[in-house]
Amino acid sequence: MPVNLSAPTSSSLLPIDGIEIGIASAGIKTVDKADLVLIKIAEGSSTSAVYTKNAFCAAPVTIAKQHQQQTPAQYLLINSGNANAGTGEQGMLAAQNCCQAVADVAEVTANTVLPFSTGVIGQQLPVEKITDVIPHAYQNLKTDNWFDAAHAIMTTDTIAKAISQKIEIDGQTITVTGMAKGSGMIRPDMATMLSYIATDAAIEQSVLDSMLQNSVDQSFNRITVDGDTSTNDACVLMATGRAGNKPITDIDNASAEKLYQLIAEISQQLAHAIVRDGEGATKFIAVDIVQGVNTEECRQVAYTIAHSPLVKTALFASDPNWGRILAAVGRSGLVEFDLSKVAIYLDNVCIVKNGEPASTYTEEQGQQVMDQDEITIKVELGRGDAKDTVWTCDFSYDYVKINAEYRS
Amino acid sequence: MPVNLSAPTSSSLLPIDGIEIGIASAGIKTVDKADLVLIKIAEGSSTSAVYTKNAFCAAPVTIAKQHQQQTPAQYLLINSGNANAGTGEQGMLAAQNCCQAVADVAEVTANTVLPFSTGVIGQQLPVEKITDVIPHAYQNLKTDNWFDAAHAIMTTDTIAKAISQKIEIDGQTITVTGMAKGSGMIRPDMATMLSYIATDAAIEQSVLDSMLQNSVDQSFNRITVDGDTSTNDACVLMATGRAGNKPITDIDNASAEKLYQLIAEISQQLAHAIVRDGEGATKFIAVDIVQGVNTEECRQVAYTIAHSPLVKTALFASDPNWGRILAAVGRSGLVEFDLSKVAIYLDNVCIVKNGEPASTYTEEQGQQVMDQDEITIKVELGRGDAKDTVWTCDFSYDYVKINAEYRS
Repeated sequence: MPVNLSAPTSSSLLPIDGIEIGIASAGIKTVDKADLVLIKIAEGSSTSAVYTKNAFCAAPVTIAKQHQQQTPAQYLLINSGNANAGTGEQGMLAAQNCCQAVADVAEVTANTVLPFSTGVIGQQLPVEKITDVIPHAYQNLKTDNWFDAAHAIMTTDTIAKAISQKIEIDGQTITVTGMAKGSGMIRPDMATMLSYIATDAAIEQSVLDSMLQNSVDQSFNRITVDGDTSTNDACVLMATGRAGNKPITDIDNASAEKLYQLIAEISQQLAHAIVRDGEGATKFIAVDIVQGVNTEECRQVAYTIAHSPLVKTALFASDPNWGRILAAVGRSGLVEFDLSKVAIYLDNVCIVKNGEPASTYTEEQGQQVMDQDEITIKVELGRGDAKDTVWTCDFSYDYVKINAEYRS
Repeated sequence: MPVNLSAPTSSSLLPIDGIEIGIASAGIKTVDKADLVLIKIAEGSSTSAVYTKNAFCAAPVTIAKQHQQQTPAQYLLINSGNANAGTGEQGMLAAQNCCQAVADVAEVTANTVLPFSTGVIGQQLPVEKITDVIPHAYQNLKTDNWFDAAHAIMTTDTIAKAISQKIEIDGQTITVTGMAKGSGMIRPDMATMLSYIATDAAIEQSVLDSMLQNSVDQSFNRITVDGDTSTNDACVLMATGRAGNKPITDIDNASAEKLYQLIAEISQQLAHAIVRDGEGATKFIAVDIVQGVNTEECRQVAYTIAHSPLVKTALFASDPNWGRILAAVGRSGLVEFDLSKVAIYLDNVCIVKNGEPASTYTEEQGQQVMDQDEITIKVELGRGDAKDTVWTCDFSYDYVKINAEYRS
């Protein structure tokens, strides 16, 4: 059960002028389940992408990076059910053959196609199953297919994740629609996180790159379920330029800032959705670190807390066990760290002040916050003005159950 | 149930000439359970100690460090049941008062006493209960008390951990006896790892310091249950000089090397015992990283694997899920990492070769190794001659159960 997360409705997902989506059932895992998505990006659009930093990245990640360097992307080809990861040279060929199949039917060159795969690691991609249905996906390309696409890219997600919003910029209505999949950084054998966000705004390439990088830094790069980074993670941002706005060429002007805020917000909502649908999650946790020397050390402390199995099991048990949070802060490796300035809060309840248990704290206060299904752990480091936030979930029996089950 | 670990017998634990141990029941948690250990170190002995690197270290750790800098230690005072951690100024006073109580009865100064506490975090130490029974512990000081001491320092350990061995050095028989407690880096609210090792050999202080630091680096600093570091961890090495050997003043001679190897081996066995008795552990895992540029990067990769909840749950499930090991290696952050040189083994079964699934590998081979309760995961990095090993356990339902249960 995802934590406070509803599925999107079909009508809530707005088409983006210049983005067409085709769906097909390749039968990679289950016959009749849609598992293939083809996204056509209109000519003249800008496309930006960021990929997993895992050194063992999957074959499609390697091919997508190569293609992107060669020429503007015109098609994204996404399959679920098989990650094409840990598949060696044969996997590289498989990804290339899938791109070629799109190129053949769309009469473009193969390097205009970016491939993405998500699903089981270490099994060869069933290329023929995919190439057989690419013509079908091509034939049903249409703009109002985001709802079906958000479902087709799901693997072990328990709920589809997609959102649309509109804003006015320079008198023009701009629409942004995004979808994501992922449920834990890696589901059992799953190579997980994918996200596709499109807007009809006109945005110059370098500005688009910055917007994507910054958005991802504040969203997908600030979540953790279990600390494991997938071999297939990717996030793509497309801008078709069909809305008629004056092209955004400078990230520092007001229009760019407004649009960036919207893209960042959508990225954050999608990222939160992944945590809310995290493996075995029963709680959604924000870890706010403030008063650090710089954001890096704030992030370091935040991740130490967010990755601590002891903190996460205490959250699962609704146990206001401040000793575990304090111990995690203490082992996070800050240099010249003066504990006597540290304060720790559960929501607004101060549990540690000046590095010691707060005299005002009562177990009942802590219990009240811990009983909630959304909790903010705030740590004041008392050594600067920087801050950062990481979002995570708790650690339950079901996490072990999901991840200990045999691949089947 | 600890993994392949038996309790020591009373007769297997050899007294160390110059070390006397007194036991008492202070009733800190349970009436009638021995929970207080007083160790008297004969005059002329050398004592070395290392402590937790957690910035939030417990009051006794702070006091022990101060006392050790001031004067040679004559007494170690250890209580279980309460960690005196997160207890602020009152906790510091409590630790000092306990030392003073020993000083009063033994007619020494308080700074010759090193205090150690292990147990629940965040509760004030019941000083009177402890000081009341210190005279009793003092009165029953005797050399053959290691067996009872190993039991008295236990908190949630399911089994006592202690060992003795003898060697000949320069024609003299040297005895080393050690005990440890700990079960997971931090048990629920528990501040955990303590170890005391004594020998009757004569070892000069600086050599003893080196021997302890090196032994700990190769043992207690190479184990992980859940990645959480306790606020109270400490390891003490005592050398009484009563065996009559020529004092060891140089770490590089043959006698020193021989004795160091024994102390290192005992440290390693005690460290392994902690992992074998780890929270919810069903398997004992060695993570061997070889062919690294230096030991630091080997350790980095080893810990990334050993801390990965996905790897640990796969081990619990006996699932030969090499994708998770590969993904952990990939995200471990090595610089200029050439995947095509990586090989991964489960015991002697090669699962990944040249960065790809080994052509010789069959799931049956992997399954056979995974069904064992002791497994070595070996990774060849293919970039140098350095190596390092970390020991860990799997991650089971019981880990979550133990850590999610309320403090009670």
